[in-house]
Amino acid sequence: VAEKQYLMTPGPTPVPPQVLAALAEPIVHHRGSDFRIVFARLLKRLREVCRTESDVLLFTASGTGGFESAVVNMCSPGERVLSVSAGNFGERWTKMATTFGCDVQELRYSWGETPSADDLRARLAELGDVTTVFMVQSETSTGVVADVQALAAAAHEAGALVVVDAVSSLGAVPCETDAWGLDVVVSGSQKALMTPPGLSLAAVSPAAWARVAASKLPRFYWDWQRVKAAQDKEDSAFTPAVGLVKALDVALGLLFEEGLEAAFARHVRLGRAAREGAKAMGLELFSPDEDRSAVVTAINVPEGIDGKALVKELRDRFGITIAGGQGHLAGKIFRIGHIGYFDIFDVTTALAAVELVLADWGADIERGVAVTRALEVWAGGAPVA
Amino acid sequence: VAEKQYLMTPGPTPVPPQVLAALAEPIVHHRGSDFRIVFARLLKRLREVCRTESDVLLFTASGTGGFESAVVNMCSPGERVLSVSAGNFGERWTKMATTFGCDVQELRYSWGETPSADDLRARLAELGDVTTVFMVQSETSTGVVADVQALAAAAHEAGALVVVDAVSSLGAVPCETDAWGLDVVVSGSQKALMTPPGLSLAAVSPAAWARVAASKLPRFYWDWQRVKAAQDKEDSAFTPAVGLVKALDVALGLLFEEGLEAAFARHVRLGRAAREGAKAMGLELFSPDEDRSAVVTAINVPEGIDGKALVKELRDRFGITIAGGQGHLAGKIFRIGHIGYFDIFDVTTALAAVELVLADWGADIERGVAVTRALEVWAGGAPVA
Repeated sequence: VAEKQYLMTPGPTPVPPQVLAALAEPIVHHRGSDFRIVFARLLKRLREVCRTESDVLLFTASGTGGFESAVVNMCSPGERVLSVSAGNFGERWTKMATTFGCDVQELRYSWGETPSADDLRARLAELGDVTTVFMVQSETSTGVVADVQALAAAAHEAGALVVVDAVSSLGAVPCETDAWGLDVVVSGSQKALMTPPGLSLAAVSPAAWARVAASKLPRFYWDWQRVKAAQDKEDSAFTPAVGLVKALDVALGLLFEEGLEAAFARHVRLGRAAREGAKAMGLELFSPDEDRSAVVTAINVPEGIDGKALVKELRDRFGITIAGGQGHLAGKIFRIGHIGYFDIFDVTTALAAVELVLADWGADIERGVAVTRALEVWAGGAPVA
Repeated sequence: VAEKQYLMTPGPTPVPPQVLAALAEPIVHHRGSDFRIVFARLLKRLREVCRTESDVLLFTASGTGGFESAVVNMCSPGERVLSVSAGNFGERWTKMATTFGCDVQELRYSWGETPSADDLRARLAELGDVTTVFMVQSETSTGVVADVQALAAAAHEAGALVVVDAVSSLGAVPCETDAWGLDVVVSGSQKALMTPPGLSLAAVSPAAWARVAASKLPRFYWDWQRVKAAQDKEDSAFTPAVGLVKALDVALGLLFEEGLEAAFARHVRLGRAAREGAKAMGLELFSPDEDRSAVVTAINVPEGIDGKALVKELRDRFGITIAGGQGHLAGKIFRIGHIGYFDIFDVTTALAAVELVLADWGADIERGVAVTRALEVWAGGAPVA
């Protein structure tokens, strides 16, 4: 195993040294005055990164815990909900809402397709009586970033509330909770927020709060009202992961130093560089070739190459961890994440290593152009909106 | 605020520097071969610390999350369960099982009383048809450590399974999951396991697994079968808090270096030293004056002293964080935790600081004897069984 490690999966993502340093600080009590200052500042910063004036609730949990909190606070058994599904994480919404007894309908696409607001409008009209639409902003399994603003508008026309999985998108691409009327936005610490996994969050709009009061699924750990009551006093309902809370506060401080808009622009340029570099060496993209899908670049495994072996070889030979395909795409695509603490030289490193292994294995690719092309695109090209 | 900080609450507890150092290491992917080695070793170590050959399931969550996993996997709505309640955490079992629709009966004691197996036997006979008894091994709110071996035996006589909250006891006092027939044991990373908060665990016996297959509450994040299926492949169902997993593995390594039996003996001696020191200065114990209650020493606030102000003064003047009373004991008792990464000089520091503040405030206490008495008891006295 190579000694230097490069974490380039779409999550967990690399964590800046300042954030790691915060994790090494002695543990403090979660009700001490020093911690309360950090906690209150973090809650304010979370509202800022979610672009909301409403509540952002924090859970000690994986991202899936945040999903579950949304289902059990927003839904009642038997209620008709719609899951917009075009990949692994869309399917997770379906499975979870089904588990909790909802009448789950789907707007289902093949993995890799981009959900459309018109399709959603038609499906909602056909179904009638849908109370909640679950959707994924960045479908990490395929690289697609959906236009949740348009999807949310279509859902609202039909009188439904929207719950958005923004786990891999929040902080990397725009997610305007209030301006786009996103009723609930769920995310996690371990992607563009540049913190280890272990914290999940849910932004809850006033419309969602009105629903919570009437919803009938039992809840204790995920109980939004309980969590809000504590947070309103700068307190936690249960002993939180105090180290991760401090770390996330440091990470958001770094994100705001760069500026949210600058971070979004950086992700667009990283995505462009990754896609153009891959194409330059003759690879075919699985991800949509568009600026919005700036979180993870999915690439088809070239003919004659074993995709799982490619991921393993990059890891064993160079210490570079990328991701393979999930579900039925296992072995067929590979995914390079560029979320959070990434710059252009991470992208060129990934491209260079992929190129070297593919060339050694006799794949039909162009040598010596990918890195240069990625740098060109990074440095010049079309301005970022 | 004093610069040097002393964390002496009953949780979170101080974390050894080796564990903090592990938290500062770069993040690795949870499905990488390097992490799998750590994860598999940790699962083995967790079985060892729980003294079980069966499964120990790991959750990214506060301790309460582990509680909730036990309720939703073990129970069905309408089922009659019994909560043995003698403090804040016993009451939490009651509230939680009630939330999930169980028919919750109580064996209820005043805070600070020690539950008895005879009482439990009588209550179970009176009620009939109880499927599950929830109990607390170390009632952190009062300092009482219950005899869960005897309580479990009484529950089994009546055909009920037992679920034990061992959050503040596991690793500090004996908890023999298999030998005592504890069907489920729930704990957390942030007490005697010497790791920051954020991981919760549930040891699940074969008898409990048989129940899980028939229980009818919906579950996804807490689904024991899903978590076991992943763990059986040295994998996690959801992205775990990888940093905390590595840290907990380091901490358990330190615990086994000392030896579990040695750690139990150390806690007994720390408890004795704290109690004898407090008594020597003329304070009255709220905790039972017995070796088993070796986790937290609760002490009555002397007459004429404001208990909340005492906790605040220790913190502001000396950087020493102890805990006040919970619930109706707020202001009436103070609690010194000596769980996990503690030695005798932590106890003497706490005693010395309490003595100084109480003396300054004119409390009727004896000066200059507490520390010496604590050291004497630590060094000599009755051997630890």
